[in-house]
Amino acid sequence: MVSDGARDTEMTAESQALPTMAPLITLTDAHMGDVNHVIINRMQSDVPLIPELASHLIAAGGKRLRPMLTIAGALFGPDGSVPDSALKLAASVEFIHSATLLHDDVIDDSDKRRGRDTANALWGNESSVLVGDFLFARAFELMVETDDIAVLGMLSSASARITEGEVKQMVMAGQPDAPLEDYISVITNKTAILFAAAAEAGARVGGASKPVCDALHKYGLALGRAFQIMDDALDYASDTKSIGKEVGDDFVDGKITMPVILAWQDSNAEERAFWQRTLGDGNIAEGDFQQAQALLQQHNAISRSLDAALAEAHAAANAVDILPDTELKSALISAAYFAANRKH
Amino acid sequence: MVSDGARDTEMTAESQALPTMAPLITLTDAHMGDVNHVIINRMQSDVPLIPELASHLIAAGGKRLRPMLTIAGALFGPDGSVPDSALKLAASVEFIHSATLLHDDVIDDSDKRRGRDTANALWGNESSVLVGDFLFARAFELMVETDDIAVLGMLSSASARITEGEVKQMVMAGQPDAPLEDYISVITNKTAILFAAAAEAGARVGGASKPVCDALHKYGLALGRAFQIMDDALDYASDTKSIGKEVGDDFVDGKITMPVILAWQDSNAEERAFWQRTLGDGNIAEGDFQQAQALLQQHNAISRSLDAALAEAHAAANAVDILPDTELKSALISAAYFAANRKH
Repeated sequence: MVSDGARDTEMTAESQALPTMAPLITLTDAHMGDVNHVIINRMQSDVPLIPELASHLIAAGGKRLRPMLTIAGALFGPDGSVPDSALKLAASVEFIHSATLLHDDVIDDSDKRRGRDTANALWGNESSVLVGDFLFARAFELMVETDDIAVLGMLSSASARITEGEVKQMVMAGQPDAPLEDYISVITNKTAILFAAAAEAGARVGGASKPVCDALHKYGLALGRAFQIMDDALDYASDTKSIGKEVGDDFVDGKITMPVILAWQDSNAEERAFWQRTLGDGNIAEGDFQQAQALLQQHNAISRSLDAALAEAHAAANAVDILPDTELKSALISAAYFAANRKH
Repeated sequence: MVSDGARDTEMTAESQALPTMAPLITLTDAHMGDVNHVIINRMQSDVPLIPELASHLIAAGGKRLRPMLTIAGALFGPDGSVPDSALKLAASVEFIHSATLLHDDVIDDSDKRRGRDTANALWGNESSVLVGDFLFARAFELMVETDDIAVLGMLSSASARITEGEVKQMVMAGQPDAPLEDYISVITNKTAILFAAAAEAGARVGGASKPVCDALHKYGLALGRAFQIMDDALDYASDTKSIGKEVGDDFVDGKITMPVILAWQDSNAEERAFWQRTLGDGNIAEGDFQQAQALLQQHNAISRSLDAALAEAHAAANAVDILPDTELKSALISAAYFAANRKH
């Protein structure tokens, strides 16, 4: 056991070197301009509304995390180069992600994303549904151009699983007694599988070996889970107004996430009645969100969720253990711990 | 010029041999059970709502016209056999079509299709959007299994064009002064391209030569246009309550179709004011639909639309002219003329 002094030093060192996305951003940066070029170029259509709406969402930014994973994957190939097919796949995963965002916002009837009006708020649900479909189809056109059927298999299967995750999430809504494994299955499908496919597909077209491809798949899976668990936990964190969406959205929507499931499992009858009335019946009054936060606090449900995110970050780091010790490997590990530590 | 007597005989013979879908149905029938098996089998998911909703739409039937075209295409291969990959593609095109139907019904807020409650009326828009996405993704998974990248290219491009057609149709809504070529572009994209890809893809995996594949592509394109022009014309036909959807739906939705465009082009200022108020401004009163029908009648707009459908049927027949004279070729020609003659 370390002395208090040593521990203090350790904590200071740790806080000075909080994990960030910066190394991954830096190491993929030389290629992200090309990826953006493909994205902008391939969202074009003779029907002007399509690029107009798509660029509102896509050009507005977001972290471009999935394309970054594809580029990182490609860089693990034997010559560390990024072939055109990796750029296309990177754009492709961003299109799939964007399509799901457009459809999600319709489903959740959201009017804000990343602090801006959503596409459905500006152009209507019809346009968002159709442009989502367009981006999805365009993603497959791009994949076809890579001429790699295995990659098409990965990403078509990932796409099917995303929708399974979304449907299951919808079915679970309002059921605070859902088992934790159902939540894990939801976030694995709706989020983590695409992270995994993005990284693996990049590695594959970059010419990486099978073990490297597999390692990056596992990494993406754990990273995606860490991100989603954090996202869901932050929705109940009172001090983060900066995540773009409103804090408390999941509560209002009756969405069942890890903190709620953990709290429910430890709750007495009175508390369960509260969750049932609010999340279950959608009967939410002034002050209920604060009450929900207090209950989560009482059962350490947020901090236990953060622990779960951290465990996924560890799993992500372990997954890339077999990769050569490069800056890129460190960057991936840093990104994983960032996912489990981020404030927004 | 034939005598009246001869003409009478000719017309009787014609009415006895009205073109039908029957020959195509008969000649593909031996394989459609297998196609249905793939369809039912591959709409399964661990998330029960998915097959439940999907089977409401898909198992309920419909003409299965697109899968039939894929099977017919395969039968034009050198040995006239239907490989597994053709069955998968047939299911795949039906999934793509079904996905667009699910999304269309959400967009049009329809509560009836083929005389039954729509999926969105029963399960809500959210479920229909997501299960549509699932079917679309599953279609690509099936295509990947055929291991034929050219077929994936055809169908991913068809999928993108479908959505372009749908978006353009949406943008055109309420604009009775739209040019006819915009309408043709809409129906080509939203309907005909998938017919073309369905037939061509079947021929390709059946091992047919390039000219045969091309002929079937052209055939599908013209057939699809004939079908859609008829569909749109029938929406204004007062004597057909049997098309499953309500007559007059397009009018109420402000959808701009061939009869309206033709009538508008010939209209005086007063008539244009009527179209503008109803289709343009969506201000529809009791009796307006009958008034619309009367105006279309006055300008022969329905019969001119039927002529256009017939011209497409001719084009479809011409497209398959190069194919060997078999029963299947006759069946395709009969199907094309049926498309331009059907009452529902």
